[in-house]
Amino acid sequence: MTTFLEQLETPVPVVDLDRMALNLDRMAAYATLHGLQLRPHVKTHKSPRIAAEQLRHGAVGLTCATLREAEVMSEVCDDILIAYPPVGAARLERLACLPDDVQVSVAADDANALPALSLAAKLGRREFRVFVEADMGMHRVGVASPEKAVALARAISDSSGLVFGGLLFYPGHIRQDVTQQTAPLAGLTTDLARYLDALRDAGLPAPVVSGGSTPAAWRMHEVPGVTQVRPGTYVYNDRTTAAIGACHWDDCALTVLATVVSVAVKGQAVVDAGTKALGREPIRADGDGFGALLDHPEVIVSRMSEEHGILDLSKSDWKPRLGDLVRIVPNHVCIVVHLFDEIIGVRGHAVETRWPVAARGRGPSTDSIESGPSRPRAV
Amino acid sequence: MTTFLEQLETPVPVVDLDRMALNLDRMAAYATLHGLQLRPHVKTHKSPRIAAEQLRHGAVGLTCATLREAEVMSEVCDDILIAYPPVGAARLERLACLPDDVQVSVAADDANALPALSLAAKLGRREFRVFVEADMGMHRVGVASPEKAVALARAISDSSGLVFGGLLFYPGHIRQDVTQQTAPLAGLTTDLARYLDALRDAGLPAPVVSGGSTPAAWRMHEVPGVTQVRPGTYVYNDRTTAAIGACHWDDCALTVLATVVSVAVKGQAVVDAGTKALGREPIRADGDGFGALLDHPEVIVSRMSEEHGILDLSKSDWKPRLGDLVRIVPNHVCIVVHLFDEIIGVRGHAVETRWPVAARGRGPSTDSIESGPSRPRAV
Repeated sequence: MTTFLEQLETPVPVVDLDRMALNLDRMAAYATLHGLQLRPHVKTHKSPRIAAEQLRHGAVGLTCATLREAEVMSEVCDDILIAYPPVGAARLERLACLPDDVQVSVAADDANALPALSLAAKLGRREFRVFVEADMGMHRVGVASPEKAVALARAISDSSGLVFGGLLFYPGHIRQDVTQQTAPLAGLTTDLARYLDALRDAGLPAPVVSGGSTPAAWRMHEVPGVTQVRPGTYVYNDRTTAAIGACHWDDCALTVLATVVSVAVKGQAVVDAGTKALGREPIRADGDGFGALLDHPEVIVSRMSEEHGILDLSKSDWKPRLGDLVRIVPNHVCIVVHLFDEIIGVRGHAVETRWPVAARGRGPSTDSIESGPSRPRAV
Repeated sequence: MTTFLEQLETPVPVVDLDRMALNLDRMAAYATLHGLQLRPHVKTHKSPRIAAEQLRHGAVGLTCATLREAEVMSEVCDDILIAYPPVGAARLERLACLPDDVQVSVAADDANALPALSLAAKLGRREFRVFVEADMGMHRVGVASPEKAVALARAISDSSGLVFGGLLFYPGHIRQDVTQQTAPLAGLTTDLARYLDALRDAGLPAPVVSGGSTPAAWRMHEVPGVTQVRPGTYVYNDRTTAAIGACHWDDCALTVLATVVSVAVKGQAVVDAGTKALGREPIRADGDGFGALLDHPEVIVSRMSEEHGILDLSKSDWKPRLGDLVRIVPNHVCIVVHLFDEIIGVRGHAVETRWPVAARGRGPSTDSIESGPSRPRAV
């Protein structure tokens, strides 16, 4: 018996499977067209099922942030980059214990991290590929100069169990804004060339140059030297991605289904999706609120409590009634996924499938992950 | 063998058990001193273990927001108020199916919600106590006038299976600021008197008058007519609670333990607690950032990504090194708890216990909840 959207308990994240398929296709086509490696970041979906789809679409491997993500994804992928500093004994031990046949890469910005990483390689009887992470203007992590990049690449090469994997950066400050000045991209091009030249001159050419979040991914072919992109959000997209022009509104595949639970206060309606369902992420573009209705984009979630979302009706002639269902496009979809244990997949209004957010959480996965074809294991 | 704080994998929420015990004692003492019923909101801890502690400290029952919370808490409590509009078939069915011997109350602000609620009472062969929720100035949910409150109370009394439980409000706009003008409290006193008079004049006196979040709880004895408080945050407290003067800094019992993973960018250090560990809640008082270090309160989390928290070192002479551990007092602790599956309880630096965040999530609990003495069941 078919279950329909209208029968679901709210709040719940719902993925339009047709839209997701188009999103997967589109990024794969872009990467192939421009000869870029695609190494999607799984932080957005945290699901081995979606990761397997990305690999079928030609991804060369996966990008993870947490060890839980890496452990879960090792069930479907044997080439995993943990784009996160390898610091802390517990993190290193889990890194060492990933399945033997998984090629593990990490990103580092500090030579002081290398001795412990080298010990972890010994503990795991394996080799880690280590990328030098450079700060290209986001000022989050990353070495600050080509000289420091060279010194770190050399220290990696000199460390037992470690192999210099290439240069990695996260261009979180660059966005696909239709009004975007070309300056940031020009700056990135110049800076990157300095890093790549310095590494080459030192006899340590970068085998891989990895950049590109979803907002910047579509422009990475304009930056000479980049060989790989690591977009995450593109699988679902969100209100921010649409607002900056990196996707269309109709490409937003994940919405939070919510119920109107109060219309008592004038000029607004209240739904059962608040901070604990939507997060409290600002839109990173022009616009207010924490989400907008898929079918009434002029209606935004203007305020929230933990379990209440306040819909501002002042710009709309839509008249919600108690019990009405709405679909909210969140500002930042990666946060929404992290707030739920399960995702509902729909085709039109019909529920077709559900899957667990298997890599949510921190510790080792205690549940066996969803069934399905695993990757063949080396023996 | 004792595990110490320093051995834990980060990021992880850690509760100082001594501080929590003092927090529980203090609120219980306040309520008893002023003859107020204490009905703590479990949204903060989502743990039947902590709820049982609150009941041992004299709480008359518990407050919940979600059905998952109510289901999990029914293992330790037979008097549960779901302070949330009873709207939506799935929510009503779960309400009906709570254990028979649990007295269930709900909050309503719309007579249109009553027919379905009445059907749910019939389905569950039970009676629901229904509170009239009034908007006392927060403008979230709640009837807007004493006349509407009277009409709703009458509609409840006239509905099969429903009993008028009293008046309920959430004073989220009133805070225990040491600099607080008395105006909001005076306004609340006047407004509440109008509601209570109108109900009494209509022959529907409110048996219970329930108000009081943590920020306002300490002042509810100043508002004539209030008989019950529903604080949640007080069990752990947080940076906002301390900043508005509703607790001391030393009363903050929950911190997020995090590791310094990068010191590459000048003037800052990066820890492994970002939005997916701390939420992105503003401090609701003077102050910036998303959290502050327990031991260096002058150091705030000034920016975040999903798995990165940027510590602003500009106001501190503390010199963090790679791998250092820090304890972050979050701006809003209820959100942090919702982001984790497990809480670590420490006495000093020694890990004494751990407990699951059993009522996190949305669906019916699939795990049996933690063992321990359950409440005696009616037979």
